[in-house]
Amino acid sequence: MIETMNFPSLEAIKAARQRIQPFIHRTPILKSEAINDMAGCEIYFKCENFQKVGAFKARGAANAVAKLTDAQKQNGVATHSSGNHAAALARAASVAGIKSYIVMPSNAPEIKKKAVKGYGGEIIECEPNLMARETTLQAVVKKTGATFIPPYDYMDVIEGQATCALEMWEEGIPFDTIMAPVGGGGLLGGTALTTKYLSPSTKVIAGEPEGADDAYRSFHAKKLIPMEGPKTIADGLLTSLGKINFAIIMDYVDDILTVSDEEIIAAMRLIYERMKIVIEPSCAVPLAALLKQKERFKGQKVGIILSGGNVDLGKLPF
Amino acid sequence: MIETMNFPSLEAIKAARQRIQPFIHRTPILKSEAINDMAGCEIYFKCENFQKVGAFKARGAANAVAKLTDAQKQNGVATHSSGNHAAALARAASVAGIKSYIVMPSNAPEIKKKAVKGYGGEIIECEPNLMARETTLQAVVKKTGATFIPPYDYMDVIEGQATCALEMWEEGIPFDTIMAPVGGGGLLGGTALTTKYLSPSTKVIAGEPEGADDAYRSFHAKKLIPMEGPKTIADGLLTSLGKINFAIIMDYVDDILTVSDEEIIAAMRLIYERMKIVIEPSCAVPLAALLKQKERFKGQKVGIILSGGNVDLGKLPF
Repeated sequence: MIETMNFPSLEAIKAARQRIQPFIHRTPILKSEAINDMAGCEIYFKCENFQKVGAFKARGAANAVAKLTDAQKQNGVATHSSGNHAAALARAASVAGIKSYIVMPSNAPEIKKKAVKGYGGEIIECEPNLMARETTLQAVVKKTGATFIPPYDYMDVIEGQATCALEMWEEGIPFDTIMAPVGGGGLLGGTALTTKYLSPSTKVIAGEPEGADDAYRSFHAKKLIPMEGPKTIADGLLTSLGKINFAIIMDYVDDILTVSDEEIIAAMRLIYERMKIVIEPSCAVPLAALLKQKERFKGQKVGIILSGGNVDLGKLPF
Repeated sequence: MIETMNFPSLEAIKAARQRIQPFIHRTPILKSEAINDMAGCEIYFKCENFQKVGAFKARGAANAVAKLTDAQKQNGVATHSSGNHAAALARAASVAGIKSYIVMPSNAPEIKKKAVKGYGGEIIECEPNLMARETTLQAVVKKTGATFIPPYDYMDVIEGQATCALEMWEEGIPFDTIMAPVGGGGLLGGTALTTKYLSPSTKVIAGEPEGADDAYRSFHAKKLIPMEGPKTIADGLLTSLGKINFAIIMDYVDDILTVSDEEIIAAMRLIYERMKIVIEPSCAVPLAALLKQKERFKGQKVGIILSGGNVDLGKLPF
């Protein structure tokens, strides 16, 4: 199966960038002298927490919606998501003037539900487990005829997420390593494709929470191991790695490093205190991994994607 | 008395900018569509929370230290400050290779004490009241021969703070109004001077907490009324308005608006959630004042200085 997949090409990723440009921000790259001193390397943080809807997910959703046929657009789009993809798809649909149906677990953070409603998405609640999500989604699609846009295991979404690294490379920085967190693998997959197309010698390394380490285990077992009962503060990374994403990772990702929740919280606090920016816990995972294995990155130029900033401020872990 | 004061001229402020440029950041101006929609005007946030030491205070301290004579530099500098000026002076001294003695109240936030020590400042603790601060400072100055650099009631400091608005005007934005918070009045005074020199028709309006409204009362009484027992979440604005600062305000500031702590917290939360940046409560005061009197700013281009980002993350009010 894997061998026959056609991953998005560099040309396709460049075309996606053109396609979604009117609908997303070109986010800034920030640096912190204090963090560089601590880390012993030069870190370039790509701030997708400043992205539309507060997360990189705006890219994939915008790309998938823009590629729909006119006939598909008639019936709108649907998805299940615990968070940022939900808001991203609702917004992308709203901008395109089409309907969106979002299946969300009943325990999704209030701020994320509010965002979906704010963008005009119709929320359908379900029990907080994958089975319930999928059954509910199927019913919605059957009833409405909407096109299902999966959160990460979907070529057009991965192609959209790949535009983030493309913007980083356009800055002309000769990255030794590029890091991203891994949950479903959409951002990591897209980042790996773009980076290896443009600079094969650059390492692509993922950070993953110990409490949701299915990508780490799958990577080393060389087969997709589904996640069961994940538990981590990095709520954006609770999802199971996707099939396409796993295939890309096996071909293009150099390593996956895991970190504890304590290490994630410490890195998160560092970013708040030193950079004065708001990020969600998932974003702090790659920095936590880097700080845990400093020697490995010594003297390097490292790009880290800060994936999003949608955090419940009432529940910060410090 | 007031009539004979020589406030810093535009030329002096421009010279200060040249003088301190190597030691400070040129901070970005950020915008938020969501906040603009809510406010009914176009707001340009000057992000001094990204400034060195996390606050605009880096400007005034750098300017004051750079203007010392070689003889003065021998004995270092001293000040009393509950927070950002302390760190700013310690850093400015450290960069100039001279000593700094910082008198701090025993109840100052731990994060601010840590910052002062990190920059090599020597902390001398005192009781948390103005009398104790001044007595302790006098003793330090007598013993060391250090030059006292006051936090705000001091021409060279005001001249330094004035460079923040200068950078804003260099962006070529035709501001209808520029807003800053007012505590001691250093930032507000400097902002008013620069703005009225460059664009006399632009309104300069301050935001002040109801629980520390000595500037508001002094402005309307046309005489300096010292503050007693201030109480507000905006800990950077607890200080009494300075004499020089009051004189500048009477000449150059158009209005002072007060807001409750609840309004400050709501505006602060808005900035965290919508802009994904970390600010201290004082920063949110001007936006809170604007949102309270929306009609007054309708359709305007408003510059708001976000004064700093040194907040105790364990004590966020949400």
